[in-house]
Order: sequence, then structure tokens, then C-alpha cells
Amino acid sequence: MIEPRTLAGFRDYLPEAMMPRERLIATAQKVYRSFGFVPIDTPALEYLEILSGKGGEESDRQMYRFEDNGGRMVGMRFDLTVPLARFAAQHVGQLGLPFKRYHIATVWRGERAQHGRYREFMQCDFDTIGTKSVAADIETACVIHELLQAIGISRFTIRVNNRAVLTGLLENLGLADKSTLVLRAIDKLPKSTPEKVVEELTAVAGCTAEQAADVLKFASIGGTADEILTQLQPLVAGSEKGEAGVERLSEILRGAAAAGVPASHLQLDVSIARGLDYYTGAIFETFLTDLPKIGSVCSGGRYDNLAALYTKQELPGIGASLGLDRLLAALEDLGMIEKVRTPAPVLVAFFDKTQLTAYLEIASAIRRAGIGCEMFPDAKKLGQQLQYADKRGFRVAIVAGDRELAAKMVQVKDLKTGETQEVSTAESFDALTQAIQKILAT
Amino acid sequence: MIEPRTLAGFRDYLPEAMMPRERLIATAQKVYRSFGFVPIDTPALEYLEILSGKGGEESDRQMYRFEDNGGRMVGMRFDLTVPLARFAAQHVGQLGLPFKRYHIATVWRGERAQHGRYREFMQCDFDTIGTKSVAADIETACVIHELLQAIGISRFTIRVNNRAVLTGLLENLGLADKSTLVLRAIDKLPKSTPEKVVEELTAVAGCTAEQAADVLKFASIGGTADEILTQLQPLVAGSEKGEAGVERLSEILRGAAAAGVPASHLQLDVSIARGLDYYTGAIFETFLTDLPKIGSVCSGGRYDNLAALYTKQELPGIGASLGLDRLLAALEDLGMIEKVRTPAPVLVAFFDKTQLTAYLEIASAIRRAGIGCEMFPDAKKLGQQLQYADKRGFRVAIVAGDRELAAKMVQVKDLKTGETQEVSTAESFDALTQAIQKILAT
Repeated sequence: MIEPRTLAGFRDYLPEAMMPRERLIATAQKVYRSFGFVPIDTPALEYLEILSGKGGEESDRQMYRFEDNGGRMVGMRFDLTVPLARFAAQHVGQLGLPFKRYHIATVWRGERAQHGRYREFMQCDFDTIGTKSVAADIETACVIHELLQAIGISRFTIRVNNRAVLTGLLENLGLADKSTLVLRAIDKLPKSTPEKVVEELTAVAGCTAEQAADVLKFASIGGTADEILTQLQPLVAGSEKGEAGVERLSEILRGAAAAGVPASHLQLDVSIARGLDYYTGAIFETFLTDLPKIGSVCSGGRYDNLAALYTKQELPGIGASLGLDRLLAALEDLGMIEKVRTPAPVLVAFFDKTQLTAYLEIASAIRRAGIGCEMFPDAKKLGQQLQYADKRGFRVAIVAGDRELAAKMVQVKDLKTGETQEVSTAESFDALTQAIQKILAT
Repeated sequence: MIEPRTLAGFRDYLPEAMMPRERLIATAQKVYRSFGFVPIDTPALEYLEILSGKGGEESDRQMYRFEDNGGRMVGMRFDLTVPLARFAAQHVGQLGLPFKRYHIATVWRGERAQHGRYREFMQCDFDTIGTKSVAADIETACVIHELLQAIGISRFTIRVNNRAVLTGLLENLGLADKSTLVLRAIDKLPKSTPEKVVEELTAVAGCTAEQAADVLKFASIGGTADEILTQLQPLVAGSEKGEAGVERLSEILRGAAAAGVPASHLQLDVSIARGLDYYTGAIFETFLTDLPKIGSVCSGGRYDNLAALYTKQELPGIGASLGLDRLLAALEDLGMIEKVRTPAPVLVAFFDKTQLTAYLEIASAIRRAGIGCEMFPDAKKLGQQLQYADKRGFRVAIVAGDRELAAKMVQVKDLKTGETQEVSTAESFDALTQAIQKILAT
């Protein structure tokens, strides 16, 4: 006998977790499509040379890699961005530009196992490639906003910044050549202390004490969007990139407001730097007001050239990724996941083996009316079947014994209120399906 | 520069292939749910001992396997049945019985590469476990029937047989101990000739010439269901299993008819044996009338004990698997795949950079009315934007230049008829969204 167990760091999705996950995926698909994003899929496995060295040292270390039966070195995708770059380079002629895609798929990272971190998780990315227009930046904010609203979350903030503003500031401070290390230090600000960040800026990034203080002062600029923009202008003055970056931030905020994103949901935050090296323009992070500790549930940004390693064609773009599994865990914490274990609201009880066809007819009529309906498969005691109904969360049970079936009647049991009514099925099943619909509507 | 290419035997799903695939998945989910099946998911990777030796020699040979960074021997799932067995054994206490699940997920098999065969494909399984009731057999036929109807296919036949009938016949012919080899030979009948099957029955399965002739005669029984059942009775008479099997087939046909499956869609076919060893009762295959050559698009059957290797608890059940990618290819061959490359029907053209917020407002109003709407991201020439609209298959373009926007007007262009109308947006966007809805309804 083999012990049935999941691989270390992996997990099964039981129905009560999988149902909300499917709902979340369907919601994301609907929102992406409503903006004209199209779905794509790429293989779970790629040639190792496609994936290797593309996501930084950590991704390389965590990647599942092996030699396949044909002697090819392969890797399992660790994100959806590297596959998108390969995909875009390979198919751009056929796809045309601009190209807006979404990709909802599983990725694998052999991370050190720890509570709440898994080695397999689902990503839910959308990107617009082939355009540098600010319209795409604005749309990215709109999509994130729509996504969260559609999921049913109202208390959240999308934080936006622009890498070009940071670049401009660093230029003015004489730190242009140290930008990666400086940004990495700034990025730690929310989870660390100002003192520690100053230490990293001086010890690791090589800033002078004065430069570190200036960087920290910059990262702490707050207020309304207009107040922040006003404070930023003098700090980037003289840097072409920085000035354009401030102007662009102001356009993004104005555009998003016109598209219906309230200022309370989209806030300018100059302390957001995002670790990844490839961002060059607008960057986004999204925090839930009631669960700030879980970190950003939807992040992304603008990049100058997606697929430079695979094609000479320049492919600028912008995109973001919804952390599906992180968001699911958050919804659970917020009590927003309904504990239902059946996707069908009606259970037809089954008592009398000789009446099987009668029960089948009833179940099928209910389904034809567009109502999900399960028939209990075994002729067991009613108590046992009602226990099953209760455990799974059915809303309505249809009960009919010999006497009822002979009289062309069924009992419709509202499992929430306990009320039972008798309905005739002599002429048609219309009265039955109407009675069910009435209960489901309450 | 690295050549952008997919791994040998793998493929990308471009939008025009991915959109119908997503539709097919959503349809399957809807049908499964309407019968009370719940979704689950399991990891792509399992301990090798869980997968090894469970799917026969071929599966073992084709399995992707490797040692992970933690020194564990792992394999990528090659079907969804072995993971279900492990899952059911592991969680049965929490799940309760009967347990009806569907699982739509990718599986991997390192098959020899050949045209139309890929090493990664999606399976779409449903199973009812924990019951031996014929009601579950009948429901399996009903689900397959509903699935194909919901997908839009009307010309198909579900072929049903019962392994117990074959067992009874082989008992009566003195071939009980050779059943696997005999069934494997029968299974080849549709793609082979009677002579070759007789040869296999005698040379490989060890039948006498008389036995082979009887087996072949049996496998060729035809006619209406009632005629076949009448011919079967004397052939299995005296075998307990065989007699019960014939009675069960008759119950399945009667029950499915009561549930609304017409006899033309569910046919008794005693030549169907299905290769897999673990089937013990009803077996199903499904053929498209207009594409018989592609083989069965939905197959399955009843098994006595799903998870014997992982638990002592007996888990009888029945299930079937929809070949999603095979069906997609069939729909394409049948001309049933609409060639649309946008999920949003409306394109808002973008001319005048200074009017960006006006276009954003319009696009957002259209979306708020529940209509998918893409905004072109760059202020390019109208001709170029209309070319893009045409290539992607947008139905409506919203065109507004300086003059129109100043007058609070937009042009609504029906891209199918070429007709253009001017609509006012002075008071609200209602007239605009109504005009679009009117075009979309035609």
C-alpha cells in the first residue's frame, strides 16, 4: 500500500477552495475581456535556454529543471512574463500590434517551504505590448480597479509611481549609476525602518550620508496627488527623464479619474520602487485596506523592451499580475468566501428503487429549467440523504415517495426554513420549477 | 540572441485558438455543475511512487520524471485518474460519499511526436465515486449527452456496453482467464478487419478457432437496443455476472430515455470493450457522426475500486473524460469555430492626444453598460485603426474627432454594414450604448 500524500510544498484544492477559485478566474476573464484583452496559453515546459537567467538569480535557483527523454534540457515556467516574451517574439508577425493578452496559468517555483508559501501557484497576468502610450498606463490602472470591484472588494488602494521620476531624482543626486541598489533599498521601506534603509543606502548602495538623507526624504513625500506632484517638480528639475516622468504621472491620474477611478482608489506613492530591474515607467501595487500585511495583490509596470533576448524588434509594453492564490487567501481571511460545497442548489432524494425513472425525469426537468440539480444515487433512508444535503449546503430538497409519485405530487423542502410544500407534477413540471425558483430567489 | 521556439511536441495557444478553448471549458464547467459535480485541483507534480506503474507500461515510459532540488523523485501527471485515486484516498473522510468531482487540467505525456499529437494536453474528467448504483451509470450518459448538446453538436452517438456482459460471455466460452487479451483484440475491430481480429484472438489470446468465431459473432450483434438485448440473453445465460450485466444495460437505456436522452444518441454496442483493465461495468464511447475517424471524444466507464493502491476503503465509481483538445480540433474541422480575435465587440478610435480623457470617458461608459470595449492606445490615423478593427473582427467602431467631441457627438460605425450614425452624448451616454446594443443584436 502506498501512502496517499501530496508532494512537499504542493497542495490539493478541495471543492470548497476550488469553487471560489473558479469564480475568481471567471471574474478576471470577464474583466480582461471587457477591455479587449485576449487569452493565450503557453506550454508548462520550455527549453531551459528560454527560461534560464531571465528572472534573476532567485528564479534560476528555484526553477524546476531536468533532462527530458529526448535529451533536451527543459524547465518548468516560473512566471508568465518570460513565456510572454518568447511568445511575442515568435508570433508578433501573426499577432499584430498593439497586442493585449491575458494569461491565467500555473507556475512553479521550488521555494524553501514555509507556512502559506507553495511551490505551485496560479498567476493571472495582463499586458499591452507594442505601445508607449500613456493610454495603456491609464488602462492598466482601470483594469486593476475593475478587477477588485468585480471581485467584490471595495476597500483597497492602487499605489502608482513612475520609475522615470526615481531615475530623474537619482540623476540629480549623482546616483544614476547606483539606481538598482538604491531602488532595492527604497523598496524595503514599508517592511523596515528608516534607519535600516539609510544603513543599506550607505553601506550597500554606496551613498554618502547626505545622499541617503535626500533619498529618504524623497521617499517620504506625502499628501494629495497634487501636493506630491508639486513637491516632486523641483527635485527632478533639469533631468529630462524626471520632468517627463512627473508629467506622465499627472496624466495617468487625470486619465484614470476621467475613466471613473476615484482618487481614493488610486494614490500616488513615490516610495514604491518595485524590485524588478526591467520596469522603466509607471509602476503599480495594490493593497487591501483591511489586510495590508499580505502585501500587494496586483502589481506591475511599464517596460521598454519585453523580448530583447529573443528578437531585434522593440516591444515596449505595460502589464500587471493578479496574485490569484494570495487574493483567495485574503478573501477567506475577510470572510468573503461562502462556505458552499455544491454548485447545484437542488437535491432530488431517491427512496424507491423501482421508481428510478420517475426521479430521473424530475431531476432532468429541473435542470432543463436552468436550475442545477443533483440526484442522490442510492435509495437510502431520507434522514441520511437530508444529512448529506445539509453537509453540502443544498438549498432545496425534492422528496417523493411511492404515495406522492402515484398521485403525481412531490414535496419541495426549503432546507433553510424547513418549510415543505406539495406541488403537482400531473400536467407539467412548471409548478415544481416555479416553486424552486421562488425559494432560490429569497 | 536566443531563438524563440516552443519545446518539441508542445505548442502555444494563440488567441483565436484560446478563445474557443475557454468557451469549451466554461461550457463543460456549467454542465458538470448543473448535475452537482464539484471542481477540484491537484498538483502537476506528484511523488513518483504515486504515479509509477499506475497507468500501464506506456504511461510509465511516457511520463516526465526527475529528481527535484530536494532530492525527491517526482513525476508530472499523465492523466487525472491516478491523481483522483490519490486525492480520494487522502481526503475521503473530509469529502464524504458519494463524491462527484470534475477536474479540468493539463496532463503531460512524452509521446513520440507525430502530426496532431502533443505532449501537453487538457483533460476534462468527471467521476462519481462511492456508489455502485445504476443511477450513476445513467447520469454519466446524461452528462455526456448534455455536454455535446451544450457545445452545439447535435449529430453524435454515445455507445454504451457493459464489461460484465463480456465477462459473462467469456465465462460461457471458457475464456474467462484470457479476458484481457480477448478484450484488447475486440477493441481493435472498428479500426481493423474481422480476419485480423480472429488472427489475434487465436495467435495472441489463445482462443480455438471456434471460440474466436463465437467471440466475433458476439461482437457483431447489431440492431435496436431491444433486439441486441434479446440476442444477448441466451449467450450469457447461466453466468451470474453476464445476466446481471444484460439487465443493467437495459436499466441504463430505460433510465437515460426517461431523463430525456433520445435512443438515437445512446446506442448499445457490444463491440466496445475499452482497453483499460480497470473497467468492470458500464463503458461509454462517444463518436461524432460527421467525423467518425477522430475516434471517441468522450469515453469512460465503471470501476470497482478506484484507490486500492492507496487505501483499504473500497471506492467504486464511474466517470468519463472529455477530450478537450481533440474536440476543439473537431469543431475546427466542422467549421464550428468562429474566427473572432477580439472578445470585445467595440473599438473606440483615438485621434487627438489632447482629447484622451474624452475617449477614456466614452470607453468606460460603454463598459459600464456591460459591453466589452477596447480603446486604441495610440493617436494614429483612422485608416490604420480601422484596419486593426477589421483584422481583429470588431463589430462597432466609435469615431470622434475634435469637431464631434466639441459638439458632444460621436460617430457609431457598424463595421459589418459600413453604416455610420451620429449620436449625441450631451445629456448622457445612454443613446450611444443603445445604438451599440442595437447593432450587436442584429
